[in-house]
Amino acid sequence: MKNITTPTTTVERLPLYYRYLQKMDSQGVEVISSKELGDGLGIPSTQVRKDLSYYGEFGRRGVGYEVMDLMKNLEKILGLDNDWRIVLVGAGNLGQALVNYGGFKKLGLDISYVLDIDPEKVKNNLGSAQVYSMRQLSTVITDNDIKIGIIAVPSEVAQQVADELIDAGVKAIWNFAPIHLRVAEDIKVRDEDLSIGLISLSYYLSN
Amino acid sequence: MKNITTPTTTVERLPLYYRYLQKMDSQGVEVISSKELGDGLGIPSTQVRKDLSYYGEFGRRGVGYEVMDLMKNLEKILGLDNDWRIVLVGAGNLGQALVNYGGFKKLGLDISYVLDIDPEKVKNNLGSAQVYSMRQLSTVITDNDIKIGIIAVPSEVAQQVADELIDAGVKAIWNFAPIHLRVAEDIKVRDEDLSIGLISLSYYLSN
Repeated sequence: MKNITTPTTTVERLPLYYRYLQKMDSQGVEVISSKELGDGLGIPSTQVRKDLSYYGEFGRRGVGYEVMDLMKNLEKILGLDNDWRIVLVGAGNLGQALVNYGGFKKLGLDISYVLDIDPEKVKNNLGSAQVYSMRQLSTVITDNDIKIGIIAVPSEVAQQVADELIDAGVKAIWNFAPIHLRVAEDIKVRDEDLSIGLISLSYYLSN
Repeated sequence: MKNITTPTTTVERLPLYYRYLQKMDSQGVEVISSKELGDGLGIPSTQVRKDLSYYGEFGRRGVGYEVMDLMKNLEKILGLDNDWRIVLVGAGNLGQALVNYGGFKKLGLDISYVLDIDPEKVKNNLGSAQVYSMRQLSTVITDNDIKIGIIAVPSEVAQQVADELIDAGVKAIWNFAPIHLRVAEDIKVRDEDLSIGLISLSYYLSN
């Protein structure tokens, strides 16, 4: 695998391919061409072939990709064959939406642990996830070997939550608070700033 | 303005600059260097200067940018000086989170119209937004000259909702359903696939 040279934009498309293959597989499709795969996603077939070529030789020229085979390969490349434990901090509207989002379960990713400061929320479950008190943060993370944390708390406390998550052993953070988190270099942060989506539509309508 | 040649990645960073300038302005900062702006966002100062240079000559060499001035310029570039009317379809967990998301109001973007199929939801307001029945879709959009639509409905009905929005006059769609929407070329769609964020963390932890 030539991961070091793989462009971020390629990495961002891999999940799209994976999800589309899942869909094709569920419809009984056994072989798919790069054109069919690209058409379904609005991506040129040349780009599809280029993206996948970073990881090996999957398809057969003039035939296409075996759906199940490529799916299993992408599963490994994306690390989805790992049993990731995921903790979400902040059981507000957004936190609840994330826990209940059907797309994650389809990928074998499940938010099983939720932390919140509100004692009322701590008493209840959230979907299939148990809600814990913020005081239990460290215990929940170490006891369950959690490596992925999702931050869905207000901006004012997001950095503090990030620090606590990292201290307890979290290595990757998905941050929904609209601030830039400062973390050590070995920690991966993905900022998910929802404003950007709406602003980019405003931009395109104006230009 | 040289919009035609502006890379998408630059466009994606403009909202970050704008939001950071807002924050600096609220703290009384009047002048900011490209280094300070970049440091606050984790973006190299050379990139900051390059991004902004697509739109004109804003800063002064060795001094920096006037915060208020650059902010007002970005507001125009991003089209935030327009009074966009925005409709959201689907008042589930995610829809509720979006309507209540504080980040939009700070930008002068407000989701004022919500549509849902559930008669129970239609009876109530959602934050400051009025919830309408799906039967009123066309009327709500044309009466209020709505150009931006947000889709927060299940995948199975997302394409149909998109078609109805476009028929009624919507020109830009922010799609949270994990499917690729097929639309005419003059319609701008931004797919917001939440799975991608989590998968990319899984990828980085595995590689």
